[in-house]
Amino acid sequence: MLDFRPVIYVLGWITCAMAIILCIPAVIDILHGDLEWEAFIGSGLVAAFFGGAAIVGHRPKGRLGLDIRQAFLVTILGWIVVGVLASFPFLHVGIGITDAVFESVSAITTTGSTVLTNLDTLAPGILLWRGILQWVGGIGIIAIAILILPLLRVGGMQLFKIESSDTSEEKTFNAMRTVISLVSIYFVLTFACAILYLAFGMNLFDAITHAMTTLSTGGFSNHDQSFGFFDDYRLHWTATVFMALGAVPFVLYLRMLRGKADALVIDQQVRVFIGFLIVSSVLLALWLMHQRELDFLTALTLTSFNITSVVTTTGFASEDYTTWGSGAVGVFLVLMFVGGCSGSSTGSIKIYRHIIVFNLVRIHLRRLVSPNRVIPLRFNGKKVPRDVTDSVLAFLTVFVGTISLFTVALTFMGLDLTTAYSASITAITNVGPGLGDVIGPSGNFSTLPDAAKWLLSFAMLAGRLEVLALLVAFDPDFWRT
Amino acid sequence: MLDFRPVIYVLGWITCAMAIILCIPAVIDILHGDLEWEAFIGSGLVAAFFGGAAIVGHRPKGRLGLDIRQAFLVTILGWIVVGVLASFPFLHVGIGITDAVFESVSAITTTGSTVLTNLDTLAPGILLWRGILQWVGGIGIIAIAILILPLLRVGGMQLFKIESSDTSEEKTFNAMRTVISLVSIYFVLTFACAILYLAFGMNLFDAITHAMTTLSTGGFSNHDQSFGFFDDYRLHWTATVFMALGAVPFVLYLRMLRGKADALVIDQQVRVFIGFLIVSSVLLALWLMHQRELDFLTALTLTSFNITSVVTTTGFASEDYTTWGSGAVGVFLVLMFVGGCSGSSTGSIKIYRHIIVFNLVRIHLRRLVSPNRVIPLRFNGKKVPRDVTDSVLAFLTVFVGTISLFTVALTFMGLDLTTAYSASITAITNVGPGLGDVIGPSGNFSTLPDAAKWLLSFAMLAGRLEVLALLVAFDPDFWRT
Repeated sequence: MLDFRPVIYVLGWITCAMAIILCIPAVIDILHGDLEWEAFIGSGLVAAFFGGAAIVGHRPKGRLGLDIRQAFLVTILGWIVVGVLASFPFLHVGIGITDAVFESVSAITTTGSTVLTNLDTLAPGILLWRGILQWVGGIGIIAIAILILPLLRVGGMQLFKIESSDTSEEKTFNAMRTVISLVSIYFVLTFACAILYLAFGMNLFDAITHAMTTLSTGGFSNHDQSFGFFDDYRLHWTATVFMALGAVPFVLYLRMLRGKADALVIDQQVRVFIGFLIVSSVLLALWLMHQRELDFLTALTLTSFNITSVVTTTGFASEDYTTWGSGAVGVFLVLMFVGGCSGSSTGSIKIYRHIIVFNLVRIHLRRLVSPNRVIPLRFNGKKVPRDVTDSVLAFLTVFVGTISLFTVALTFMGLDLTTAYSASITAITNVGPGLGDVIGPSGNFSTLPDAAKWLLSFAMLAGRLEVLALLVAFDPDFWRT
Repeated sequence: MLDFRPVIYVLGWITCAMAIILCIPAVIDILHGDLEWEAFIGSGLVAAFFGGAAIVGHRPKGRLGLDIRQAFLVTILGWIVVGVLASFPFLHVGIGITDAVFESVSAITTTGSTVLTNLDTLAPGILLWRGILQWVGGIGIIAIAILILPLLRVGGMQLFKIESSDTSEEKTFNAMRTVISLVSIYFVLTFACAILYLAFGMNLFDAITHAMTTLSTGGFSNHDQSFGFFDDYRLHWTATVFMALGAVPFVLYLRMLRGKADALVIDQQVRVFIGFLIVSSVLLALWLMHQRELDFLTALTLTSFNITSVVTTTGFASEDYTTWGSGAVGVFLVLMFVGGCSGSSTGSIKIYRHIIVFNLVRIHLRRLVSPNRVIPLRFNGKKVPRDVTDSVLAFLTVFVGTISLFTVALTFMGLDLTTAYSASITAITNVGPGLGDVIGPSGNFSTLPDAAKWLLSFAMLAGRLEVLALLVAFDPDFWRT
């Protein structure tokens, strides 16, 4: 029998944590004299009540322990509970439940697609709330990607299982210590980003909120023009650098703190990632120079910002890159599938899977010609176990399959084909903007039909959970015995 | 050292065979009083000369034997040689070398994309030539898919290796017997199709050429309106049935001849294939009924014809299905990736790979929850070996990767995004028509830039060779030692 008690217990703690987080924008709104603080405090009280009840009612007899199925359920339901709780404050800016849930899920999954219009006129409390949600969603997925998904062996993440000591007491201790270190690093990076934003001309509020949505690779902005609102190349380069810093494996920062100063530089995944960003930005800049008669540095500022934004699945836009010409549109469509590194807040396929698949195909081609040759598959200098490649390929298949399925579903909801597939892709890869007039970088998701918004909320969640971690619950076998 | 002598020797025989085939439309043109017969006879003489020289100059000392690399080279160069030779007659209808090669490659790969306009006004010789090329290309790929690709272990085809006796003498004998049986079956099915076309109102010439492009799942028509030119539901249903008959594994026909009358009915791949066609046609018909206020049978005639055409990668259109609405466009886009069965002339992913991948993912999901459970992967009741699943996944990765790469390349050649990706998909899947105004079912490839036509010719060839069989030659390792 599947025992729900420990699941509900953990969800109770998550709910209580949300109650506390809800107080932050309330304080801002009170200081600012806005009336919306009631929305935050009200939602916080509801969360605190249900969370407390869940904790008290389902306290485990001995030590808390979760088996695999319970761990999957906590992971899935955790995101759903947070998504629902986080949507309450949005109801108070005059949007319906569909839009509120969409915006909230888009925030916590660090997707960054928005249904809110006239962002510049909204109260600071709700704008801060969007930033906080992305920031919390970002560190949430980093912690889960480092501590939980490797144990659940989702999509090849078992490759990044961190070695831990034997006794489970020590394990818990190590996990707690790891989480604290991760939050500290994340906080310091965000702080540094905010200081630079401030130094280069943003006001304090924009600096803080945009730093939060930069490091979390979320991409919400306080302005309808997104990052294009800020007309200073230093701000754009700061964002480019910090989006990239938010997209590398956070465990490497831990290792650097523990004395391995070169951990980041020697990592294969990071090298490929940064190399890819540089090469593609430079190439597209060279093309854009001729296309629009810009000097190289202006073109490079544009391409590096927007490419880094899409590759890290952030989704800021400094300009509507879909107007650069057909070639650029093709590039950006394909870039959506790249993603950042493992153990970061980025979505999509991610660099390590590309490396593994590339090597897998190369080895396969050689073995076609020399069937008896044994060529081990290596990643970061280590041999990759069989079950990792299986997981990676299962992930890719399900990833592409889900995108196709959702594309067809969206076309039947009346979306044109470009909007349908780019919405499906951008939701599952957690990028943010799509292609076309409706949901492109200068567009907005507000005009989509309600059914499409619900489907896309689900798609964002699926993408955040590497699709597989959500799909397990749809296998009837999961619920048996 | 890679020894090219046996490769050239085999290519010589292929070239001589082409010389003979070139005489057929010459006879027709002579009977019809057209002057184009000179083009066919001229090309035939050139082919005979070079083919003969290659045979005489490279005759092997002992028995002809090919190692793996030579077999790959023969397979790749064979298609290229035939593609080039077959393009000569097209030069005489007033199109350039680019268009001639595109049309010829589109024909022999049974893709069916065309750059010729005003088809209805062309001489019968050239129309017959298009039909013959598709017919020959169809049986060519069937023979290769049954006899050669399984030995080369391309894309999981090793699953369909036919058991043969031990001595190589007997092997050769069996291979010859198999080829003769396959050609006979193919001929009988084409004949039956032509008789029915004739009976239901086509003229003799249309009946023969369309039967050839139906069974080969090629999709060339003698009319700009494609199959929409024929206004009789019986003709549409005949085509639907024979496209499906051309898309099932041809070895099953062999088995039926050898006494296993139920070979076709009990095959898992065929069941899934036919089941998929029926279910998707009925569902889309129900939707189309409401969309356009048709009765069910009229809607079903439309959907079953066009769905079967796209799924079997034939590419006939009885109507421009992209005007049915956004939902239909999404469906047809995804249908391009389905494909027919193994050992047929269809392209794309094909049903057996879908079955294997589906089971692979299901097993993976179960093993995520119960890591120690051992669940064998079965296909057609038999356990699937590890290297087959590896091949299938390598195929899928390369397939999708190639489409992405070609899409980006095409956008930089100035194609709009929809034209670019649908051209890339339709070429690699060997379907024929794309999406959008330019290359959609009522469009034509003639207006694309030359660079795009060359790239797409290459893409059609890549698709025909299951991508992997072409890609091996691009690995520097292939050419070493």
